[in-house]
Amino acid sequence: MNVKIEVSARHAHFTQHDLEVLFGEGYDLKKQKDLSSGEYTSSDVVKLVGSKTTLENVRVVGPCKIHTQIEVSKSDAYRLGLNAPLRLSGKVIRSGPVKVVGPKGELELEEGLIVPMRHLKVDPDRASELNLNNAQKIKVKIEGPRALIFDEVEVRVKEDYDFAIVIDTDEANASGISSGGEGEVIV
Amino acid sequence: MNVKIEVSARHAHFTQHDLEVLFGEGYDLKKQKDLSSGEYTSSDVVKLVGSKTTLENVRVVGPCKIHTQIEVSKSDAYRLGLNAPLRLSGKVIRSGPVKVVGPKGELELEEGLIVPMRHLKVDPDRASELNLNNAQKIKVKIEGPRALIFDEVEVRVKEDYDFAIVIDTDEANASGISSGGEGEVIV
Repeated sequence: MNVKIEVSARHAHFTQHDLEVLFGEGYDLKKQKDLSSGEYTSSDVVKLVGSKTTLENVRVVGPCKIHTQIEVSKSDAYRLGLNAPLRLSGKVIRSGPVKVVGPKGELELEEGLIVPMRHLKVDPDRASELNLNNAQKIKVKIEGPRALIFDEVEVRVKEDYDFAIVIDTDEANASGISSGGEGEVIV
Repeated sequence: MNVKIEVSARHAHFTQHDLEVLFGEGYDLKKQKDLSSGEYTSSDVVKLVGSKTTLENVRVVGPCKIHTQIEVSKSDAYRLGLNAPLRLSGKVIRSGPVKVVGPKGELELEEGLIVPMRHLKVDPDRASELNLNNAQKIKVKIEGPRALIFDEVEVRVKEDYDFAIVIDTDEANASGISSGGEGEVIV
């Protein structure tokens, strides 16, 4: 069956505490666009400072989370000169360190930097209909001049999830696909 | 069968004319390391200037060719703000424009910027032994946490070619593999 592709560019999620360190006490993110599952992009940005370079204008995604998590591609991590392990969202324990600079302050994070693992988002109803289980691994086939089959795509079942494959910018470039493109799920 | 992976980072090939514009009349590249099929890396570098940024320290590969060709990843092309079409090496007609700056001069290339297509290099003897033909498309399977199968991998048969799959840095990052890693050829 066909599934929409979402390309996840580098972005940051903060705890309320960390957001206030970077943007000031009681700061509210400036919501820009709703994402699925209650998340939204903001017009707020931070800088990521690595040993080799600084990446400017890294978008903050709201609302605040229980862990601060900075998601970059492997290409970004090499540019920064930082170690960013491949992790599912939320698995930040012993992930990479990074310095984050906001308009009002900065954070020296000991962990939180990850390269997000590709996954299939699906809501419980559709998952049940398609006989897909949370944490199951599937394949996704991409057509075109850089055709490939992504293996090890983890199924993540959650209320209100759009039905979509999430890949990072390296994966999008390697497969020649953009956000809004389509792949084929192979179970 | 297993095959070695070579990761091709951004680099440049020049005609003798273009090399002399950038490095001065009668310039000889400073050879650093032999590659397969008579090519070699040099310690000479140029800058690529795009509409959004400049990439420094782009390695020149020798010897000089009949066409100038600058190879970057799609990530590089986005950073530069330039259009770089996906092409097999040598197919530079109507490829992307780019400005190149060397120590002694600069070039405003109207074409020459490409994203190199992944391919399998093989010498004629081994190609015959494995029943592989030039321009044939094969698949290559990569194992690991970012396991995937590259489709549309073109076979290139040439004297003195190492037996190796050549991919770019986006493809290496997307599949979690480094130079020296291995893949499995699926015919």
